[in-house]
Amino acid sequence: MERPVKSWADAAPRLVAVAAGRAPADLVLRDLTLVNVQSREVLPGWQVAVAEGRFAYVGPDASHCIGEGTEVVEGGGRYLIPGLIDGHMHIESGMLIPAEFAAAVAPHGTTTMFTDPHEIANVLGLAGVRLMHDEALMQPLNIFTQMPSCAPSAPGLETTGYEITAEDVAEAMAWPGIVGLGEMMNFPGVVNGDPQMLEEMAATMRAGKVVGGHYASPDRGIPFHAYAAGGAADDHEGTAESDAIARARQGMRSMLRLGSAWYDVESQITAITEKGLDPRNFILCTDDSHSGTLVGEGHMDRVVRHAIACGCEPLIALQMATVNTATHFGLERELGSIAPGRRADMILTSSLEELPIEAVWARGVKVAEGGTLLADCPHLDWPESARATVKLGRSVAPEDFEIAAPEGRNSVRAKVIGVVENQAPTKALTADLPVIDGLVETEGEVAQIALVERHRGTGGVTNAFVSGFGYTGRMAMASTVAHDSHHMIVVGTDREMMAAAANHLGELGGGVTLWRDGAERATVPLPIAGLMSDSPAAEVAEQAQALGRAMAEAGCTLNNAYMQHSLLALVVIPELRISDLGLVDVRTFELVPLFEDAT
Amino acid sequence: MERPVKSWADAAPRLVAVAAGRAPADLVLRDLTLVNVQSREVLPGWQVAVAEGRFAYVGPDASHCIGEGTEVVEGGGRYLIPGLIDGHMHIESGMLIPAEFAAAVAPHGTTTMFTDPHEIANVLGLAGVRLMHDEALMQPLNIFTQMPSCAPSAPGLETTGYEITAEDVAEAMAWPGIVGLGEMMNFPGVVNGDPQMLEEMAATMRAGKVVGGHYASPDRGIPFHAYAAGGAADDHEGTAESDAIARARQGMRSMLRLGSAWYDVESQITAITEKGLDPRNFILCTDDSHSGTLVGEGHMDRVVRHAIACGCEPLIALQMATVNTATHFGLERELGSIAPGRRADMILTSSLEELPIEAVWARGVKVAEGGTLLADCPHLDWPESARATVKLGRSVAPEDFEIAAPEGRNSVRAKVIGVVENQAPTKALTADLPVIDGLVETEGEVAQIALVERHRGTGGVTNAFVSGFGYTGRMAMASTVAHDSHHMIVVGTDREMMAAAANHLGELGGGVTLWRDGAERATVPLPIAGLMSDSPAAEVAEQAQALGRAMAEAGCTLNNAYMQHSLLALVVIPELRISDLGLVDVRTFELVPLFEDAT
Repeated sequence: MERPVKSWADAAPRLVAVAAGRAPADLVLRDLTLVNVQSREVLPGWQVAVAEGRFAYVGPDASHCIGEGTEVVEGGGRYLIPGLIDGHMHIESGMLIPAEFAAAVAPHGTTTMFTDPHEIANVLGLAGVRLMHDEALMQPLNIFTQMPSCAPSAPGLETTGYEITAEDVAEAMAWPGIVGLGEMMNFPGVVNGDPQMLEEMAATMRAGKVVGGHYASPDRGIPFHAYAAGGAADDHEGTAESDAIARARQGMRSMLRLGSAWYDVESQITAITEKGLDPRNFILCTDDSHSGTLVGEGHMDRVVRHAIACGCEPLIALQMATVNTATHFGLERELGSIAPGRRADMILTSSLEELPIEAVWARGVKVAEGGTLLADCPHLDWPESARATVKLGRSVAPEDFEIAAPEGRNSVRAKVIGVVENQAPTKALTADLPVIDGLVETEGEVAQIALVERHRGTGGVTNAFVSGFGYTGRMAMASTVAHDSHHMIVVGTDREMMAAAANHLGELGGGVTLWRDGAERATVPLPIAGLMSDSPAAEVAEQAQALGRAMAEAGCTLNNAYMQHSLLALVVIPELRISDLGLVDVRTFELVPLFEDAT
Repeated sequence: MERPVKSWADAAPRLVAVAAGRAPADLVLRDLTLVNVQSREVLPGWQVAVAEGRFAYVGPDASHCIGEGTEVVEGGGRYLIPGLIDGHMHIESGMLIPAEFAAAVAPHGTTTMFTDPHEIANVLGLAGVRLMHDEALMQPLNIFTQMPSCAPSAPGLETTGYEITAEDVAEAMAWPGIVGLGEMMNFPGVVNGDPQMLEEMAATMRAGKVVGGHYASPDRGIPFHAYAAGGAADDHEGTAESDAIARARQGMRSMLRLGSAWYDVESQITAITEKGLDPRNFILCTDDSHSGTLVGEGHMDRVVRHAIACGCEPLIALQMATVNTATHFGLERELGSIAPGRRADMILTSSLEELPIEAVWARGVKVAEGGTLLADCPHLDWPESARATVKLGRSVAPEDFEIAAPEGRNSVRAKVIGVVENQAPTKALTADLPVIDGLVETEGEVAQIALVERHRGTGGVTNAFVSGFGYTGRMAMASTVAHDSHHMIVVGTDREMMAAAANHLGELGGGVTLWRDGAERATVPLPIAGLMSDSPAAEVAEQAQALGRAMAEAGCTLNNAYMQHSLLALVVIPELRISDLGLVDVRTFELVPLFEDAT
């Protein structure tokens, strides 16, 4: 079911014949204003001829390429730009399988994605990565896979479903769709010379592939330089202009990110627009896009529009989403520009500023027009092992969420994970909570949080406290999207509701669900690895919206609080998190007791 | 005897340790003004630390990298620029073996060369390419080999010593120093779909390597586009601004050439300086440099200086001789910029405009200072097979150069190869010549030319006429450098001198020699393949100068006429040439009779 593209080497005899006028093209587009991202020019009146899914001729007059069977498309003078490329992203963030993600973004002009299936790696290990990789290769778009580097992301502080080893990385480098190593998030490991991290990067470099970077610290002193010396070739974690500049100066590519919740383009693009750095080392990417963003706002078209709105010249912004990215991954002769031999990925648009995506071709096939998908994006036959990943081992009971107080106390001072609106970091708070019948009870802003083990059916439940969501009444919300180890996070004000929500996800095989006053109020089923739906993006976006409304009805006052919910187990971002091993203080990378005054 | 560079993958543990301050660097340079060709910035006060021949740290303060055994160099505020890269060149043009070529160019700041040993391929085939490749890998500089693509360059019109096949190309792609295919000169073959040419390019692309281009026609219409569709990734044959632009627009890299006799930078660099094209796809190269140029004027430093003198911004000119070239060959993470992990190839200079090459390091080792070579450039133990390539099969006699007139004639109208000063093309002339005792004799401007077979000892001699050198008296000049098939070209006014010169080269094993009035006047011995000396460049340059003086004393009035001499058998450039098969009209690619009126 793969859709192999005939290589330039194999296609060359026909491409030459078409360009020479000895054989008809499959497709000719004319009456175009061609955007040449190689020379950085706009070329009115140019024409293109396509054969074998690749450009055969790009020049002023393709009439000699037209023959029997050649489809001729009149561009009406519109711009022809290369298909857009996302330089770094996680498909799982859309809660969609690769096929449905592709179906959602093709109408937005994305024809190539560099994807790091890091989430499924935590749930299903190398086998999960392979499934994503295989479905990616079945799509009409170019979906390259970066082998995840860090599962677990915090060894010793959490238990993932599977772990990724240096051997896994070396093995994956031989797969046809693997283009490099996914973001090396364990930057302290690299800086400290951790042998596994260096070996994963070495295996990637030996395979001639690209090491993705992730240096998420504001310290651009010695550790930053040591990280750069390790081999990471790019980084999308910069947030300030000085971050972008620092990375380019180290010979890394600065990836500027506009995701659903990441706004790092405006603050960094001034490195080009104001500081005048050579733009070749800057790349646009999304990192994480929710299905709602894909449906309502777009994908890479949204990022390019935003870059232009930030003052970037349209041709430079387009280079940052096409040829720069292709060059970075060693694919500049394969895609990313409208030039002979490259995959015929292209977009018709009537404005370079507003960038309406009017028609999209990938590999010479029209995949979308006027926002409507035309291509078939086939599903992998996902195996049962990928659908039955929520293994609770038993039915969860309300008693599992009871938090016993230290003997003889009638109140306790407990640590509380403080959620902050629109931010990934949490605050390490404390609260005095009452003890009733030997159990600690929540009150006011404080709710309970539980991490329910779901990979091995151990029956393990870790309990703690959280505040900031604003939940009131008898409710619970549970999610099997629980970065990065993806157990199940349950937040609630009521133990019965918590048990009901958890058991519901156990039955569904994963998802997000909100229960209130004894009943299910909204659910996003995510049957694939407990992370992804195999429904279309629009459907998932609607379910997610319904979930958001249900959260608000349960008293939640935060913007897009589902993100905060799903990050509460992310034990690499400060300050306080929960894992299957207990409460984690991410300032010190230590497991800490729940009570401040337990002694 | 190879000098392997530890890969970044293998060096990473130490590079990280040095950058982190846990291990001492081998070398630290400080008090520098660093030229960053990645960000296109000049960074005063930056410092670099080197370990394992690679940059470990590049930043504002390398003090933490200094420890026991670290050599510290004070830059005195001077500029540190990356070592210069020649994007396309033929070592044989210097009449030097790779070791002596490296020794000559290292003091000029060239630290990397992409070389196409096309000449030796004609003489010794794949085995000859391997010898060049092997000596290249022994040098302290980075010398990459492009596998020659076209030997013979004109099948059917000449007989080379060896032929290069598509299988040879596929085999060579696995050698450690092979970076791609040498210039695909058979552009009519590509345009017409010649299976061997397409297969050579396919083998190169399948190996993930770069197909060098050579499209030497002013026709930028359909054939040019068909050539681009075949897979050539670069081209250095452009001579006009519109050539440079056309190539960039096709997604090819425009190589701008300043050789000893090529002046194609000034006419093309306006594509950047005036037309404002993105400079990333422009690369500087030399193609062919004589030893005299290397000794007297320089190498890539000369080209960069020239580009700057043509109005190019120094930082852009430097990019065109560093990072652009490295990126083109897929080596951007390996060399071409001063950034972590890259080979520590660097130059100290006190001016970015005049570019004095004050000190040069390659792979972290100082190889030259103040114009003096400091490194050892070891010779391969060249086998006898490479030294005994001038196989005449017998002693050549004056009678071999007799040109019999058609029966009963006392004068003939003969075709004459007309040499044009400072140009590669010749003119197809005619002359009326007297017949004495049945033999055609020369007079006036017309001299004799002979192609003496020297690869297989067939004893074959092809005779014809040439004009334009201005030779007078009794003289002959012979050369085993005779592009591209490299038989022996003998030009003379006297048959005895022609025989003496030819036999002298037979004894020497190749070279260039001028005889006059019964005696040897000047000789450049070229014992390796009859193409190269294993003496130092300065010595060869002196011999070549002496040869030039001897040519002038023999009446030659042309500038640098040795070049014209050695190109008289180049049966791919119009109009009239000589080969071992006869006289060739390169306008029609046909063998033609010597006499116009022979019927």
